[in-house]
Amino acid sequence: MANWFDNGEALEHLAIDDRGFQYGDGLFETVAIRNGAPRLWEFHLERLARGCELLRITMPRKDRLLRAAMDAVGGSNVSSAYCIVKIIVSAGASRRGYGRKLVKVPSVLCGVFPSSPPPLKLYRDGTRAVLCQTRLALDSVVRGVKTLNRIEQVLARSEFNAADVFEGLTMDADGNIICGTMSNVFFVKNKTVSTPSLQRCGVAGVMRRHVIETLQAQGTGVATTVVSAADFGASDEVFVSNSQFGVMPLSGCANWDWGVGPITRKVMQTMADSGVAECRL
Amino acid sequence: MANWFDNGEALEHLAIDDRGFQYGDGLFETVAIRNGAPRLWEFHLERLARGCELLRITMPRKDRLLRAAMDAVGGSNVSSAYCIVKIIVSAGASRRGYGRKLVKVPSVLCGVFPSSPPPLKLYRDGTRAVLCQTRLALDSVVRGVKTLNRIEQVLARSEFNAADVFEGLTMDADGNIICGTMSNVFFVKNKTVSTPSLQRCGVAGVMRRHVIETLQAQGTGVATTVVSAADFGASDEVFVSNSQFGVMPLSGCANWDWGVGPITRKVMQTMADSGVAECRL
Repeated sequence: MANWFDNGEALEHLAIDDRGFQYGDGLFETVAIRNGAPRLWEFHLERLARGCELLRITMPRKDRLLRAAMDAVGGSNVSSAYCIVKIIVSAGASRRGYGRKLVKVPSVLCGVFPSSPPPLKLYRDGTRAVLCQTRLALDSVVRGVKTLNRIEQVLARSEFNAADVFEGLTMDADGNIICGTMSNVFFVKNKTVSTPSLQRCGVAGVMRRHVIETLQAQGTGVATTVVSAADFGASDEVFVSNSQFGVMPLSGCANWDWGVGPITRKVMQTMADSGVAECRL
Repeated sequence: MANWFDNGEALEHLAIDDRGFQYGDGLFETVAIRNGAPRLWEFHLERLARGCELLRITMPRKDRLLRAAMDAVGGSNVSSAYCIVKIIVSAGASRRGYGRKLVKVPSVLCGVFPSSPPPLKLYRDGTRAVLCQTRLALDSVVRGVKTLNRIEQVLARSEFNAADVFEGLTMDADGNIICGTMSNVFFVKNKTVSTPSLQRCGVAGVMRRHVIETLQAQGTGVATTVVSAADFGASDEVFVSNSQFGVMPLSGCANWDWGVGPITRKVMQTMADSGVAECRL
Protein backbone atom coordinates (compact mmCIF):
# COMPACT_ATOMS: atom_id res chain seq x y z
CA MET A 1 0.00 0.00 0.00
CA ALA A 2 1.51 3.27 -1.11
CA ASN A 3 1.34 6.49 0.85
CA TRP A 4 1.20 9.64 -1.25
CA PHE A 5 1.60 13.15 0.06
CA ASP A 6 1.29 16.68 -1.29
CA ASN A 7 3.16 19.10 0.98
CA GLY A 8 2.84 16.77 3.92
CA GLU A 9 -0.87 16.18 3.38
CA ALA A 10 -2.06 12.67 2.58
CA LEU A 11 -3.25 12.37 -1.00
CA GLU A 12 -5.14 9.62 -2.77
CA HIS A 13 -6.22 11.42 -5.90
CA LEU A 14 -4.76 13.62 -8.55
CA ALA A 15 -6.42 16.45 -10.47
CA ILE A 16 -7.38 14.87 -13.77
CA ASP A 17 -6.14 17.89 -15.71
CA ASP A 18 -2.66 17.52 -14.25
CA ARG A 19 -0.30 17.72 -17.20
CA GLY A 20 1.68 14.81 -15.81
CA PHE A 21 -1.30 12.62 -16.68
CA GLN A 22 -2.43 14.38 -19.84
CA TYR A 23 0.99 14.58 -21.53
CA GLY A 24 3.65 13.07 -19.26
CA ASP A 25 4.67 16.69 -18.69
CA GLY A 26 6.86 16.16 -15.65
CA LEU A 27 9.75 14.34 -14.04
CA PHE A 28 10.41 11.96 -11.20
CA GLU A 29 13.13 10.68 -8.91
CA THR A 30 13.10 7.43 -6.98
CA VAL A 31 15.14 8.04 -3.86
CA ALA A 32 16.51 5.40 -1.49
CA ILE A 33 15.84 6.28 2.16
CA ARG A 34 18.43 4.59 4.38
CA ASN A 35 18.66 5.08 8.15
CA GLY A 36 16.27 8.01 7.96
CA ALA A 37 18.11 9.93 5.22
CA PRO A 38 17.91 10.10 1.42
CA ARG A 39 20.89 8.47 -0.30
CA LEU A 40 22.68 10.32 -3.15
CA TRP A 41 20.28 13.19 -2.54
CA GLU A 42 22.43 15.82 -4.27
CA PHE A 43 22.68 13.67 -7.39
CA HIS A 44 18.90 13.28 -7.48
CA LEU A 45 18.49 17.04 -7.10
CA GLU A 46 20.98 17.77 -9.87
CA ARG A 47 19.28 15.43 -12.31
CA LEU A 48 15.88 16.84 -11.38
CA ALA A 49 17.19 20.38 -11.90
CA ARG A 50 18.56 19.41 -15.31
CA GLY A 51 15.18 17.87 -16.17
CA CYS A 52 13.31 20.98 -15.01
CA GLU A 53 15.62 23.10 -17.17
CA LEU A 54 14.97 20.94 -20.24
CA LEU A 55 11.21 20.89 -19.59
CA ARG A 56 11.12 24.58 -18.61
CA ILE A 57 9.44 23.73 -15.32
CA THR A 58 10.35 25.86 -12.31
CA MET A 59 12.61 23.72 -10.15
CA PRO A 60 11.12 23.52 -6.65
CA ARG A 61 13.37 24.83 -3.87
CA LYS A 62 15.76 22.16 -2.66
CA ASP A 63 14.87 22.63 1.00
CA ARG A 64 11.19 22.31 0.10
CA LEU A 65 11.85 19.05 -1.76
CA LEU A 66 13.78 17.58 1.16
CA ARG A 67 11.08 18.59 3.61
CA ALA A 68 8.36 17.20 1.34
CA ALA A 69 10.21 13.88 1.03
CA MET A 70 10.95 13.52 4.72
CA ASP A 71 7.49 14.72 5.81
CA ALA A 72 6.06 12.04 3.55
CA VAL A 73 8.24 9.35 5.12
CA GLY A 74 7.35 10.62 8.58
CA GLY A 75 3.65 10.69 7.78
CA SER A 76 3.62 7.23 6.25
CA ASN A 77 3.34 3.86 7.94
CA VAL A 78 6.69 2.85 6.46
CA SER A 79 9.99 2.54 8.32
CA SER A 80 12.47 5.34 7.57
CA ALA A 81 15.28 2.86 8.16
CA TYR A 82 14.84 1.38 4.69
CA CYS A 83 12.27 2.56 2.15
CA ILE A 84 11.72 4.39 -1.13
CA VAL A 85 10.42 7.88 -1.78
CA LYS A 86 9.25 8.59 -5.30
CA ILE A 87 9.13 12.34 -5.95
CA ILE A 88 7.05 13.47 -8.91
CA VAL A 89 7.35 17.04 -10.17
CA SER A 90 4.80 17.72 -12.89
CA ALA A 91 4.02 20.96 -14.71
CA GLY A 92 0.74 21.09 -12.79
CA ALA A 93 -2.88 21.37 -13.88
CA SER A 94 -3.79 23.35 -16.98
CA ARG A 95 -6.35 23.76 -19.72
CA ARG A 96 -6.42 21.25 -22.57
CA GLY A 97 -3.67 21.57 -25.15
CA TYR A 98 0.08 21.16 -25.35
CA GLY A 99 0.60 24.81 -24.43
CA ARG A 100 0.91 25.41 -20.71
CA LYS A 101 -2.10 27.71 -20.60
CA LEU A 102 -3.11 28.88 -17.12
CA VAL A 103 -0.67 26.59 -15.38
CA LYS A 104 -0.53 27.58 -11.76
CA VAL A 105 2.38 25.86 -10.04
CA PRO A 106 4.23 22.59 -10.54
CA SER A 107 2.78 19.64 -8.63
CA VAL A 108 5.25 18.14 -6.16
CA LEU A 109 4.03 14.78 -4.94
CA CYS A 110 5.85 12.25 -2.78
CA GLY A 111 5.00 8.56 -2.59
CA VAL A 112 6.49 6.36 0.12
CA PHE A 113 6.96 2.66 -0.53
CA PRO A 114 8.19 -0.09 1.76
CA SER A 115 11.32 -1.87 0.58
CA SER A 116 13.93 -4.34 1.72
CA PRO A 117 17.41 -5.21 0.49
CA PRO A 118 17.58 -7.85 -2.26
CA PRO A 119 18.79 -11.29 -1.05
CA LEU A 120 22.55 -11.50 -0.46
CA LYS A 121 22.59 -14.45 -2.85
CA LEU A 122 21.91 -12.11 -5.78
CA TYR A 123 24.98 -10.03 -4.95
CA ARG A 124 27.16 -13.11 -4.44
CA ASP A 125 26.07 -15.25 -7.39
CA GLY A 126 24.85 -12.53 -9.73
CA THR A 127 21.55 -12.27 -11.54
CA ARG A 128 20.40 -12.88 -15.07
CA ALA A 129 18.91 -10.51 -17.63
CA VAL A 130 17.13 -10.82 -20.95
CA LEU A 131 17.90 -8.80 -24.05
CA CYS A 132 14.73 -6.82 -24.83
CA GLN A 133 13.17 -6.48 -28.26
CA THR A 134 11.97 -2.98 -27.38
CA ARG A 135 14.54 -0.51 -28.72
CA LEU A 136 15.13 3.01 -27.43
CA ALA A 137 14.47 5.97 -29.76
CA LEU A 138 17.48 8.03 -30.83
CA ASP A 139 18.23 11.65 -30.03
CA SER A 140 15.23 12.44 -27.85
CA VAL A 141 15.46 16.03 -26.60
CA VAL A 142 14.90 14.70 -23.08
CA ARG A 143 17.45 11.88 -23.14
CA GLY A 144 19.37 11.43 -19.92
CA VAL A 145 16.73 12.84 -17.58
CA LYS A 146 13.81 11.03 -16.00
CA THR A 147 10.60 12.39 -17.47
CA LEU A 148 7.17 10.87 -16.94
CA ASN A 149 7.40 9.64 -20.59
CA ARG A 150 8.43 6.09 -19.83
CA ILE A 151 6.60 3.99 -22.41
CA GLU A 152 9.84 2.43 -23.64
CA GLN A 153 10.72 1.14 -20.18
CA VAL A 154 7.17 -0.10 -19.62
CA LEU A 155 7.23 -2.04 -22.90
CA ALA A 156 10.73 -3.44 -22.30
CA ARG A 157 9.72 -4.48 -18.78
CA SER A 158 6.65 -6.26 -20.12
CA GLU A 159 8.89 -8.63 -22.08
CA PHE A 160 9.99 -10.73 -19.09
CA ASN A 161 8.30 -12.19 -16.10
CA ALA A 162 10.31 -15.26 -15.05
CA ALA A 163 11.31 -15.36 -11.38
CA ASP A 164 15.00 -15.87 -12.20
CA VAL A 165 15.20 -12.88 -14.56
CA PHE A 166 16.20 -9.76 -12.68
CA GLU A 167 16.45 -7.19 -15.46
CA GLY A 168 16.00 -6.55 -19.18
CA LEU A 169 18.78 -4.89 -21.15
CA THR A 170 17.74 -2.50 -23.91
CA MET A 171 19.47 -1.49 -27.11
CA ASP A 172 18.93 1.71 -29.05
CA ALA A 173 17.38 1.66 -32.52
CA ASP A 174 20.88 1.18 -33.98
CA GLY A 175 21.49 -1.98 -31.93
CA ASN A 176 23.90 -0.56 -29.36
CA ILE A 177 23.52 -1.59 -25.72
CA ILE A 178 22.30 1.34 -23.61
CA CYS A 179 20.94 0.34 -20.19
CA GLY A 180 18.52 -1.84 -18.29
CA THR A 181 14.82 -1.05 -17.82
CA MET A 182 15.52 0.12 -14.25
CA SER A 183 19.31 0.15 -14.12
CA ASN A 184 22.47 1.26 -15.86
CA VAL A 185 25.00 -1.28 -17.00
CA PHE A 186 28.79 -1.55 -16.77
CA PHE A 187 31.05 -4.04 -18.52
CA VAL A 188 34.64 -5.11 -17.99
CA LYS A 189 37.04 -6.09 -20.77
CA ASN A 190 40.78 -6.54 -20.28
CA LYS A 191 40.39 -5.08 -16.79
CA THR A 192 38.89 -1.82 -18.09
CA VAL A 193 35.50 -0.84 -16.69
CA SER A 194 33.20 0.77 -19.29
CA THR A 195 29.61 1.94 -19.48
CA PRO A 196 27.51 2.66 -22.58
CA SER A 197 27.40 6.23 -23.83
CA LEU A 198 24.08 7.94 -23.12
CA GLN A 199 24.63 10.59 -25.78
CA ARG A 200 21.67 9.43 -27.89
CA CYS A 201 19.23 7.88 -25.39
CA GLY A 202 18.90 6.30 -21.97
CA VAL A 203 18.62 7.58 -18.42
CA ALA A 204 21.73 8.68 -16.53
CA GLY A 205 21.20 7.00 -13.17
CA VAL A 206 22.40 8.52 -9.92
CA MET A 207 24.09 5.26 -8.90
CA ARG A 208 25.82 5.15 -12.31
CA ARG A 209 27.20 8.59 -11.56
CA HIS A 210 28.24 7.50 -8.06
CA VAL A 211 30.11 4.48 -9.48
CA ILE A 212 31.84 6.59 -12.13
CA GLU A 213 32.86 9.35 -9.73
CA THR A 214 33.99 6.98 -7.01
CA LEU A 215 36.15 4.95 -9.41
CA GLN A 216 37.53 8.15 -10.90
CA ALA A 217 38.48 9.39 -7.44
CA GLN A 218 40.31 6.09 -6.93
CA GLY A 219 42.26 6.60 -10.15
CA THR A 220 40.62 3.63 -11.84
CA GLY A 221 38.22 5.50 -14.07
CA VAL A 222 35.31 4.31 -16.21
CA ALA A 223 35.31 4.55 -20.01
CA THR A 224 32.10 5.75 -21.70
CA THR A 225 31.69 4.09 -25.08
CA VAL A 226 29.29 3.21 -27.85
CA VAL A 227 29.04 -0.59 -27.62
CA SER A 228 27.34 -3.01 -29.99
CA ALA A 229 25.47 -6.00 -28.60
CA ALA A 230 28.16 -8.38 -29.91
CA ASP A 231 31.03 -6.48 -28.28
CA PHE A 232 29.03 -6.19 -25.08
CA GLY A 233 28.39 -9.91 -25.04
CA ALA A 234 32.13 -10.56 -25.32
CA SER A 235 32.76 -8.76 -22.01
CA ASP A 236 34.67 -10.49 -19.21
CA GLU A 237 32.32 -9.20 -16.51
CA VAL A 238 29.07 -7.22 -16.37
CA PHE A 239 27.29 -5.46 -13.54
CA VAL A 240 24.25 -3.21 -13.19
CA SER A 241 23.63 -0.19 -10.96
CA ASN A 242 20.48 1.35 -9.53
CA SER A 243 19.66 3.84 -6.79
CA GLN A 244 17.97 1.18 -4.67
CA PHE A 245 20.10 -1.96 -4.93
CA GLY A 246 23.45 -0.26 -5.57
CA VAL A 247 25.63 -2.48 -7.74
CA MET A 248 24.87 -6.09 -8.59
CA PRO A 249 26.71 -8.58 -10.82
CA LEU A 250 24.99 -9.70 -13.98
CA SER A 251 26.08 -13.29 -14.44
CA GLY A 252 24.44 -13.66 -17.83
CA CYS A 253 22.02 -12.38 -20.45
CA ALA A 254 20.47 -14.28 -23.36
CA ASN A 255 23.26 -16.62 -24.59
CA TRP A 256 26.01 -14.75 -22.77
CA ASP A 257 27.49 -16.07 -19.53
CA TRP A 258 29.86 -13.87 -17.58
CA GLY A 259 29.72 -15.28 -14.08
CA VAL A 260 30.83 -12.97 -11.27
CA GLY A 261 34.34 -11.59 -11.72
CA PRO A 262 37.00 -10.07 -9.48
CA ILE A 263 36.65 -6.51 -10.73
CA THR A 264 32.90 -6.52 -10.11
CA ARG A 265 33.55 -7.77 -6.57
CA LYS A 266 36.08 -4.99 -6.09
CA VAL A 267 33.63 -2.36 -7.33
CA MET A 268 31.02 -3.73 -4.94
CA GLN A 269 33.49 -3.46 -2.07
CA THR A 270 34.23 0.12 -3.10
CA MET A 271 30.52 0.86 -3.17
CA ALA A 272 30.01 -0.71 0.24
CA ASP A 273 32.87 1.43 1.61
CA SER A 274 31.17 4.53 0.14
CA GLY A 275 28.00 3.81 2.11
CA VAL A 276 25.98 1.63 -0.27
CA ALA A 277 25.47 -1.01 2.40
CA GLU A 278 23.66 -3.46 0.12
CA CYS A 279 26.93 -4.16 -1.69
CA ARG A 280 28.71 -5.45 1.44
CA LEU A 281 29.14 -9.20 1.01
CA MET B 1 -14.25 24.28 -17.47
CA ALA B 2 -13.73 20.68 -18.49
CA ASN B 3 -16.16 17.89 -17.78
CA TRP B 4 -14.57 14.51 -17.19
CA PHE B 5 -16.44 11.23 -16.98
CA ASP B 6 -15.62 7.62 -16.15
CA ASN B 7 -18.32 5.35 -17.53
CA GLY B 8 -20.84 8.15 -17.51
CA GLU B 9 -20.06 9.18 -13.96
CA ALA B 10 -18.64 12.66 -13.37
CA LEU B 11 -15.02 12.57 -12.34
CA GLU B 12 -12.77 15.25 -10.95
CA HIS B 13 -9.90 13.18 -9.69
CA LEU B 14 -7.68 10.38 -10.85
CA ALA B 15 -6.15 7.56 -8.81
CA ILE B 16 -2.60 8.74 -8.22
CA ASP B 17 -1.20 5.30 -9.00
CA ASP B 18 -2.78 5.35 -12.46
CA ARG B 19 -0.03 4.31 -14.84
CA GLY B 20 -1.04 7.07 -17.22
CA PHE B 21 0.29 9.53 -14.66
CA GLN B 22 3.19 7.49 -13.34
CA TYR B 23 4.66 6.49 -16.73
CA GLY B 24 2.53 7.91 -19.53
CA ASP B 25 1.34 4.32 -19.94
CA GLY B 26 -1.68 4.98 -22.11
CA LEU B 27 -3.14 6.58 -25.22
CA PHE B 28 -5.60 9.25 -26.18
CA GLU B 29 -7.80 10.45 -29.00
CA THR B 30 -9.20 13.94 -29.43
CA VAL B 31 -12.48 13.54 -31.26
CA ALA B 32 -14.48 16.29 -32.97
CA ILE B 33 -18.18 16.12 -32.08
CA ARG B 34 -20.23 17.72 -34.83
CA ASN B 35 -24.04 17.82 -34.87
CA GLY B 36 -24.17 15.30 -32.05
CA ALA B 37 -21.88 12.70 -33.63
CA PRO B 38 -18.16 11.94 -33.53
CA ARG B 39 -16.34 12.80 -36.78
CA LEU B 40 -13.91 10.27 -38.32
CA TRP B 41 -14.86 7.94 -35.47
CA GLU B 42 -13.66 4.76 -37.24
CA PHE B 43 -10.26 6.32 -37.91
CA HIS B 44 -9.93 7.28 -34.25
CA LEU B 45 -10.86 3.73 -33.24
CA GLU B 46 -8.36 2.19 -35.65
CA ARG B 47 -5.48 4.34 -34.41
CA LEU B 48 -6.46 3.64 -30.81
CA ALA B 49 -6.57 -0.09 -31.54
CA ARG B 50 -3.12 0.08 -33.14
CA GLY B 51 -1.86 1.97 -30.06
CA CYS B 52 -3.39 -0.60 -27.70
CA GLU B 53 -1.70 -3.35 -29.69
CA LEU B 54 1.70 -1.64 -29.48
CA LEU B 55 1.26 -0.92 -25.77
CA ARG B 56 -0.27 -4.34 -25.05
CA ILE B 57 -3.29 -2.74 -23.44
CA THR B 58 -6.65 -4.46 -23.92
CA MET B 59 -8.56 -2.38 -26.45
CA PRO B 60 -11.90 -1.40 -24.91
CA ARG B 61 -14.96 -2.56 -26.85
CA LYS B 62 -15.88 -0.14 -29.59
CA ASP B 63 -19.51 0.14 -28.53
CA ARG B 64 -18.39 0.85 -24.98
CA LEU B 65 -16.09 3.62 -26.21
CA LEU B 66 -18.84 5.24 -28.27
CA ARG B 67 -21.28 5.05 -25.37
CA ALA B 68 -18.69 6.48 -22.97
CA ALA B 69 -17.95 9.37 -25.32
CA MET B 70 -21.59 10.21 -26.02
CA ASP B 71 -22.67 9.74 -22.37
CA ALA B 72 -19.94 12.21 -21.47
CA VAL B 73 -21.18 14.75 -24.00
CA GLY B 74 -24.74 14.22 -22.82
CA GLY B 75 -23.77 14.58 -19.17
CA SER B 76 -21.73 17.72 -19.74
CA ASN B 77 -22.87 21.33 -19.96
CA VAL B 78 -21.41 21.54 -23.46
CA SER B 79 -23.36 21.64 -26.72
CA SER B 80 -23.20 18.42 -28.73
CA ALA B 81 -23.54 20.51 -31.88
CA TYR B 82 -19.87 21.44 -31.79
CA CYS B 83 -17.41 20.29 -29.14
CA ILE B 84 -14.44 18.06 -28.40
CA VAL B 85 -14.27 14.74 -26.58
CA LYS B 86 -10.84 13.66 -25.40
CA ILE B 87 -10.77 9.93 -24.71
CA ILE B 88 -7.92 8.66 -22.57
CA VAL B 89 -7.25 4.93 -22.32
CA SER B 90 -4.53 4.23 -19.76
CA ALA B 91 -3.20 0.90 -18.51
CA GLY B 92 -4.95 1.58 -15.20
CA ALA B 93 -3.72 1.70 -11.62
CA SER B 94 -0.92 -0.59 -10.49
CA ARG B 95 1.85 -1.04 -7.97
CA ARG B 96 5.07 0.97 -8.37
CA GLY B 97 7.43 -0.20 -11.10
CA TYR B 98 7.49 -0.39 -14.87
CA GLY B 99 6.00 -3.89 -14.76
CA ARG B 100 2.21 -3.93 -14.88
CA LYS B 101 1.89 -5.70 -11.55
CA LEU B 102 -1.65 -6.13 -10.27
CA VAL B 103 -3.16 -4.00 -13.00
CA LYS B 104 -6.91 -4.40 -12.89
CA VAL B 105 -8.46 -2.88 -15.99
CA PRO B 106 -7.58 -0.06 -18.35
CA SER B 107 -8.93 3.33 -17.36
CA VAL B 108 -11.28 4.82 -19.96
CA LEU B 109 -11.88 8.49 -19.27
CA CYS B 110 -13.72 11.02 -21.40
CA GLY B 111 -13.29 14.78 -21.13
CA VAL B 112 -15.71 17.13 -22.88
CA PHE B 113 -14.51 20.56 -23.95
CA PRO B 114 -16.39 23.44 -25.55
CA SER B 115 -15.12 24.49 -28.95
CA SER B 116 -15.98 26.70 -31.88
CA PRO B 117 -14.82 26.82 -35.51
CA PRO B 118 -11.71 28.92 -36.16
CA PRO B 119 -12.44 32.30 -37.87
CA LEU B 120 -13.20 32.03 -41.58
CA LYS B 121 -10.36 34.51 -42.17
CA LEU B 122 -7.81 31.86 -41.21
CA TYR B 123 -9.12 29.50 -43.89
CA ARG B 124 -9.25 32.26 -46.51
CA ASP B 125 -5.96 34.04 -45.84
CA GLY B 126 -4.01 31.18 -44.29
CA THR B 127 -2.11 31.14 -41.04
CA ARG B 128 1.56 31.34 -40.11
CA ALA B 129 3.77 28.84 -38.32
CA VAL B 130 7.19 28.89 -36.69
CA LEU B 131 9.89 26.28 -37.21
CA CYS B 132 10.51 24.73 -33.80
CA GLN B 133 13.93 24.08 -32.29
CA THR B 134 12.57 20.98 -30.54
CA ARG B 135 13.38 17.97 -32.71
CA LEU B 136 11.55 14.65 -32.70
CA ALA B 137 13.41 11.50 -31.63
CA LEU B 138 14.00 8.85 -34.30
CA ASP B 139 12.62 5.34 -34.44
CA SER B 140 10.49 5.37 -31.30
CA VAL B 141 8.72 2.04 -30.91
CA VAL B 142 5.47 3.98 -30.48
CA ARG B 143 5.82 6.34 -33.43
CA GLY B 144 2.62 7.02 -35.33
CA VAL B 145 0.22 6.40 -32.44
CA LYS B 146 -0.90 8.87 -29.81
CA THR B 147 0.49 7.79 -26.46
CA LEU B 148 0.39 9.89 -23.30
CA ASN B 149 4.16 10.47 -23.81
CA ARG B 150 3.92 13.90 -25.38
CA ILE B 151 6.89 15.82 -23.97
CA GLU B 152 8.17 16.65 -27.45
CA GLN B 153 4.91 18.32 -28.45
CA VAL B 154 4.73 20.16 -25.12
CA LEU B 155 8.25 21.52 -25.58
CA ALA B 156 7.71 22.44 -29.24
CA ARG B 157 4.45 24.19 -28.31
CA SER B 158 6.21 26.18 -25.60
CA GLU B 159 8.39 27.82 -28.25
CA PHE B 160 5.71 30.18 -29.58
CA ASN B 161 3.07 32.36 -28.06
CA ALA B 162 2.42 35.22 -30.51
CA ALA B 163 -1.24 35.76 -31.41
CA ASP B 164 -0.54 35.55 -35.15
CA VAL B 165 1.31 32.22 -34.95
CA PHE B 166 -1.08 29.32 -35.38
CA GLU B 167 1.25 26.33 -35.30
CA GLY B 168 4.84 25.17 -34.85
CA LEU B 169 6.38 22.81 -37.37
CA THR B 170 8.78 20.20 -36.06
CA MET B 171 11.69 18.42 -37.68
CA ASP B 172 13.15 15.09 -36.69
CA ALA B 173 16.66 14.82 -35.26
CA ASP B 174 17.99 14.51 -38.83
CA GLY B 175 16.43 17.82 -39.90
CA ASN B 176 13.55 16.46 -41.97
CA ILE B 177 10.14 18.13 -41.66
CA ILE B 178 7.66 15.79 -39.92
CA CYS B 179 4.50 17.54 -38.66
CA GLY B 180 3.10 20.35 -36.56
CA THR B 181 2.72 20.21 -32.78
CA MET B 182 -1.02 19.54 -33.19
CA SER B 183 -1.35 18.95 -36.92
CA ASN B 184 0.02 17.11 -39.90
CA VAL B 185 1.42 19.02 -42.83
CA PHE B 186 1.03 18.72 -46.61
CA PHE B 187 3.03 20.51 -49.27
CA VAL B 188 2.48 21.10 -52.97
CA LYS B 189 5.27 21.25 -55.58
CA ASN B 190 4.66 21.18 -59.31
CA LYS B 191 0.99 20.38 -58.62
CA THR B 192 1.86 17.22 -56.64
CA VAL B 193 0.49 17.03 -53.10
CA SER B 194 2.92 15.38 -50.66
CA THR B 195 3.11 14.76 -46.94
CA PRO B 196 6.17 13.89 -44.83
CA SER B 197 6.85 10.23 -44.20
CA LEU B 198 6.06 9.18 -40.61
CA GLN B 199 8.26 6.08 -40.82
CA ARG B 200 10.67 7.32 -38.14
CA CYS B 201 8.57 9.61 -35.93
CA GLY B 202 5.45 11.75 -35.74
CA VAL B 203 1.77 11.13 -35.16
CA ALA B 204 -0.42 9.88 -38.01
CA GLY B 205 -3.45 12.14 -37.67
CA VAL B 206 -6.96 11.00 -38.51
CA MET B 207 -7.55 14.08 -40.69
CA ARG B 208 -4.25 13.38 -42.50
CA ARG B 209 -5.61 9.94 -43.27
CA HIS B 210 -8.93 11.40 -44.39
CA VAL B 211 -7.15 13.83 -46.76
CA ILE B 212 -4.94 11.07 -48.19
CA GLU B 213 -7.81 8.60 -48.69
CA THR B 214 -10.18 11.20 -50.11
CA LEU B 215 -7.61 12.47 -52.63
CA GLN B 216 -6.71 8.89 -53.51
CA ALA B 217 -10.36 8.09 -54.16
CA GLN B 218 -10.45 11.11 -56.49
CA GLY B 219 -7.45 9.78 -58.39
CA THR B 220 -5.23 12.67 -57.31
CA GLY B 221 -3.23 10.85 -54.70
CA VAL B 222 -0.77 12.10 -52.09
CA ALA B 223 2.94 11.26 -52.15
CA THR B 224 4.58 10.31 -48.86
CA THR B 225 8.21 11.44 -48.81
CA VAL B 226 11.20 12.23 -46.64
CA VAL B 227 11.57 16.00 -47.01
CA SER B 228 14.37 18.24 -45.77
CA ALA B 229 13.56 21.66 -44.37
CA ALA B 230 15.09 23.34 -47.43
CA ASP B 231 13.03 21.34 -49.91
CA PHE B 232 9.93 21.87 -47.82
CA GLY B 233 10.50 25.61 -47.77
CA ALA B 234 10.70 25.61 -51.57
CA SER B 235 7.12 24.30 -51.83
CA ASP B 236 4.52 26.14 -53.90
CA GLU B 237 1.78 25.67 -51.30
CA VAL B 238 1.50 24.27 -47.78
CA PHE B 239 -1.47 23.29 -45.65
CA VAL B 240 -2.02 21.63 -42.30
CA SER B 241 -4.64 19.15 -41.14
CA ASN B 242 -6.12 18.33 -37.74
CA SER B 243 -9.17 16.48 -36.47
CA GLN B 244 -10.77 19.67 -35.17
CA PHE B 245 -10.11 22.36 -37.79
CA GLY B 246 -9.93 20.10 -40.83
CA VAL B 247 -7.55 21.58 -43.39
CA MET B 248 -6.13 25.08 -43.23
CA PRO B 249 -3.65 26.87 -45.52
CA LEU B 250 -0.25 27.72 -44.08
CA SER B 251 0.71 30.98 -45.74
CA GLY B 252 4.17 31.06 -44.28
CA CYS B 253 6.69 29.73 -41.75
CA ALA B 254 9.93 31.36 -40.62
CA ASN B 255 11.38 33.00 -43.77
CA TRP B 256 9.16 31.06 -46.15
CA ASP B 257 6.08 32.63 -47.74
CA TRP B 258 3.70 30.45 -49.66
CA GLY B 259 0.47 32.43 -49.67
CA VAL B 260 -2.74 30.44 -50.29
CA GLY B 261 -2.67 28.48 -53.53
CA PRO B 262 -5.27 26.96 -55.85
CA ILE B 263 -4.56 23.34 -55.00
CA THR B 264 -4.97 24.03 -51.28
CA ARG B 265 -8.31 25.71 -52.03
CA LYS B 266 -9.35 22.70 -54.07
CA VAL B 267 -8.40 20.31 -51.26
CA MET B 268 -10.41 22.43 -48.84
CA GLN B 269 -13.41 22.26 -51.14
CA THR B 270 -12.98 18.47 -51.33
CA MET B 271 -12.84 18.30 -47.55
CA ALA B 272 -15.94 20.46 -47.22
CA ASP B 273 -17.76 18.17 -49.65
CA SER B 274 -16.70 15.17 -47.53
CA GLY B 275 -18.37 16.68 -44.46
CA VAL B 276 -15.59 18.72 -42.88
CA ALA B 277 -17.78 21.81 -42.72
CA GLU B 278 -15.06 24.11 -41.38
CA CYS B 279 -13.34 23.99 -44.78
CA ARG B 280 -16.32 25.48 -46.65
CA LEU B 281 -15.31 29.00 -47.68
